[in-house]
Amino acid sequence: MGIATLTINLNALRANWRRLNSMSGTETAAVIKADAYGLGADRVAATLADEGVQSFFVAVAEEGAAVRKALGEGPTIYVFSGHMEGDTHLIAKYNLTPLINSTDQMLRHAKLMKNYSFGIQLDTGMNRLGMEPTEWEAVRDIALPLEPKLMLSHLACADEPAHPMNRQQLKTFEKMTKGLSVPRSLAATGGILLGEEYHFDLTRPGIGLYGGDPFRDAEPVVSIDIPVVQIRDVEIGESVGYGNTWHASTVRKIATVSAGYADGILRAMGPKTALYAKSINCPIVGRISMDLIGVDVTDATETPKSLTLLNSKQTIDHLAHNAGTIGYEILTSLGARYERRYDEG
Amino acid sequence: MGIATLTINLNALRANWRRLNSMSGTETAAVIKADAYGLGADRVAATLADEGVQSFFVAVAEEGAAVRKALGEGPTIYVFSGHMEGDTHLIAKYNLTPLINSTDQMLRHAKLMKNYSFGIQLDTGMNRLGMEPTEWEAVRDIALPLEPKLMLSHLACADEPAHPMNRQQLKTFEKMTKGLSVPRSLAATGGILLGEEYHFDLTRPGIGLYGGDPFRDAEPVVSIDIPVVQIRDVEIGESVGYGNTWHASTVRKIATVSAGYADGILRAMGPKTALYAKSINCPIVGRISMDLIGVDVTDATETPKSLTLLNSKQTIDHLAHNAGTIGYEILTSLGARYERRYDEG
Repeated sequence: MGIATLTINLNALRANWRRLNSMSGTETAAVIKADAYGLGADRVAATLADEGVQSFFVAVAEEGAAVRKALGEGPTIYVFSGHMEGDTHLIAKYNLTPLINSTDQMLRHAKLMKNYSFGIQLDTGMNRLGMEPTEWEAVRDIALPLEPKLMLSHLACADEPAHPMNRQQLKTFEKMTKGLSVPRSLAATGGILLGEEYHFDLTRPGIGLYGGDPFRDAEPVVSIDIPVVQIRDVEIGESVGYGNTWHASTVRKIATVSAGYADGILRAMGPKTALYAKSINCPIVGRISMDLIGVDVTDATETPKSLTLLNSKQTIDHLAHNAGTIGYEILTSLGARYERRYDEG
Repeated sequence: MGIATLTINLNALRANWRRLNSMSGTETAAVIKADAYGLGADRVAATLADEGVQSFFVAVAEEGAAVRKALGEGPTIYVFSGHMEGDTHLIAKYNLTPLINSTDQMLRHAKLMKNYSFGIQLDTGMNRLGMEPTEWEAVRDIALPLEPKLMLSHLACADEPAHPMNRQQLKTFEKMTKGLSVPRSLAATGGILLGEEYHFDLTRPGIGLYGGDPFRDAEPVVSIDIPVVQIRDVEIGESVGYGNTWHASTVRKIATVSAGYADGILRAMGPKTALYAKSINCPIVGRISMDLIGVDVTDATETPKSLTLLNSKQTIDHLAHNAGTIGYEILTSLGARYERRYDEG
């Protein structure tokens, strides 16, 4: 087989949710946007629903429709982008709960879907999604009689606990929602770790479920094994890969493995990343190509049939560090070519 | 609608193939691995087959199977990873032509698929795929009586025309294939541009078909339009996005658009990239998030309902430059969430 295997450990996913849930002390939802960060929203949602999750969050109505098909009726599916033009049909058909972001969206919803469920998204300083204080003041008399299901905002700096922005957003959120009887949500994974005053009535972890920073105690959820196409001896002075960027300074044994940047193994991570032959560290040599990577397997004790890119020793956050990005982007880049296996342990 | 639209201009694809074909002066195949560089191997292959392409190249047998389903019988489908362990069934069922890379693969093929079509891949110095001169010497007496359909090698530095590696690989390829009556292929897009002596019996453009460097005369094939979720005024000193990395130095109008790095809009391109409101350049502000990007639309002459990331003015190579990578990686990163539209012009 020429394609790599991406294994998703559903027990680790369950364990991560349970741990975050025990820290929340309130309803703990799950963020499964971007196809559950690339891991398959259908399987991830079904597993978490079985674990007791009753509220899910997606980015856009199209994702919500897919999740509803996977889950059936029952759980609430919130849509971060709210009620956008052209979304009415999907929202109604799949019983989605848009998080209204603006006056435009509120008027659209009130006009077209007066009796349908919705939430309110407030901007508390990130300036990305949601209504700002003055906008909310202008709209609240339209919104509140329609009984929003949730009032939500998002922290810009939750992965930096000491950042003054966290407390500033908390204060703004409290002020904007003061005296209302609507359930409130402010915390994603980082917000859960900030402590109880950030938790309100519902927390909504994303990255922590999938084994990434800032939830340092997360169990890794993803592993990747890549088949070896062939192994060759490379003499001193020979080069490997595009642009002849790597030359052998001693005789080396080089494996070519069958995956590349088309599988989300970002070119940027190449110079700092190794694959594993069992416990042996085998550095990438030369540039990562679209479908192939050269790996120095000289130190492997046996001839490897496959090499491991992600495991419990090398996590998404290690790869992110190597590529100059964040674990979230490592996950969402993984792409469609893998054979995805769901391990129930 | 909350998802972005990725439009693939099939007429531009056809035009690029025709132009490369006219430069080839020999059979011109098409490389459609990695789902045709992320653009949809089924539609791309069918379009190019209609244009007259008779040979297609994929990375792995699984991709070959999908392309055969799309094309039906007729065209040859070559598999770069060759005949890997476990591939025999797919190769037979979907009538694929593996490019044999090693003695192991040759022995496997001779044992299990003696009467099935195959090609030979030679390593002429890139040390990635294919048999080296000594290995080929040892294997040729097994291979040649089985009548390989093609002998192929790949250039490591074809996008640098002056690089001495090109001529060195050419000489090695000529030497390794001298006196044989098997058709030969050395040139992908870069090799076509190097000139006639690199063309042999079959050229196999990839990136040039899809509008990328090093084929500077390519027509852009891909455009991306991203819907605006909402627009807000941001006051002096306010920040936008995660980590508060951007602050407004004057009052600005900021649009939040519904796409992000989960759509392959690499985080690394953020600081240097703008989107377009018609012809007006609107810079990205703050960090690109998973599903959302902040864009400064202060200079837009109308309130935009969507913004354009890729068009004829800003191509995959511009984005690649901004992200510190190559156009190939921009294409293969685009991801599954887009609405893909195929424009037949």
